[in-house]
Amino acid sequence: MKLIIAVIQDKDSNRLSNALVENNFQATKLASTGGFLKAGNTTFLIGVKDEEVEDVLGIIQGNCKAREQLVAPVSPMGGNADSYVPYPVEVQVGGATVFIMPVEQFEKF
Amino acid sequence: MKLIIAVIQDKDSNRLSNALVENNFQATKLASTGGFLKAGNTTFLIGVKDEEVEDVLGIIQGNCKAREQLVAPVSPMGGNADSYVPYPVEVQVGGATVFIMPVEQFEKF
Amino acid sequence: MKLIIAVIQDKDSNRLSNALVENNFQATKLASTGGFLKAGNTTFLIGVKDEEVEDVLGIIQGNCKAREQLVAPVSPMGGNADSYVPYPVEVQVGGATVFIMPVEQFEKF
Ligand code: NI
Ligand code: NI
Ligand code: NI
Repeated sequence: MKLIIAVIQDKDSNRLSNALVENNFQATKLASTGGFLKAGNTTFLIGVKDEEVEDVLGIIQGNCKAREQLVAPVSPMGGNADSYVPYPVEVQVGGATVFIMPVEQFEKF
Repeated sequence: MKLIIAVIQDKDSNRLSNALVENNFQATKLASTGGFLKAGNTTFLIGVKDEEVEDVLGIIQGNCKAREQLVAPVSPMGGNADSYVPYPVEVQVGGATVFIMPVEQFEKF
Repeated sequence: MKLIIAVIQDKDSNRLSNALVENNFQATKLASTGGFLKAGNTTFLIGVKDEEVEDVLGIIQGNCKAREQLVAPVSPMGGNADSYVPYPVEVQVGGATVFIMPVEQFEKF
């Protein structure tokens, strides 16, 4: 038994939840902020059998991996015209920080 | 030293908190959602000595165990009369998913 | 690799966050309540290399240690004049409960 603690971006949270459910893995979500990832994030707790760890890591990587995204230019508001970028820019979104923790005993009541 | 991570239903949260306090165990509660249990849930972190694990598991089981509960029929609102059940039904409530984690070092400042 | 789980008082949370960032440690904060510490608290998850554990413990102790604080007297409102204390009193603030957990595998996607 292992407990997988995965910190991911909020925007990937629903997609990861759905992918885990489709594969019959159960997860609990904890509201979390800051730190490992810049934007708002969510911490997943996923209890798995030892032989399922790689499967779940694949699901996390497939749904949350850091990737580039084109962001449309935003019209300057107020006096920020100097920093206005008139073309789409690539920003990095997503990403996951994952800890696989040993579990000594597991109980379900 | 062990860290007990227990995911339980919100409705059992106060009862478990009180039972832990009465038995001189300290717990931290994390707001959590979805997953291991269907309804809203709460994740308890409880730090205990090795020899106290069984006591705390007993307290969790005694206060959070999955059980049947009779739910009174609810009058149908709007057009749901087709699915109206005119007698009390048994639903499962409660339940706890519990991970007992090894702790390498413990500090209190 | 270790995962440091630190429960600290809300009032020390920003100070600890800043001190961790200044020292290039990343942390995720979980909203938490009650238990190990009386007032509102925050749970930090901090992933570190084995040789960094002592550094991080020092930063937690330096920013969150339990200490005495003088609290100014509050004018009695309503009928509480009997319990009014007309001079500043020392109360204990801060404090940290810290679990250092073994990590079996760590992944960053
Ligand atoms: Ni195992
Ligand atoms: Ni121990
Ligand atoms: Ni290690």
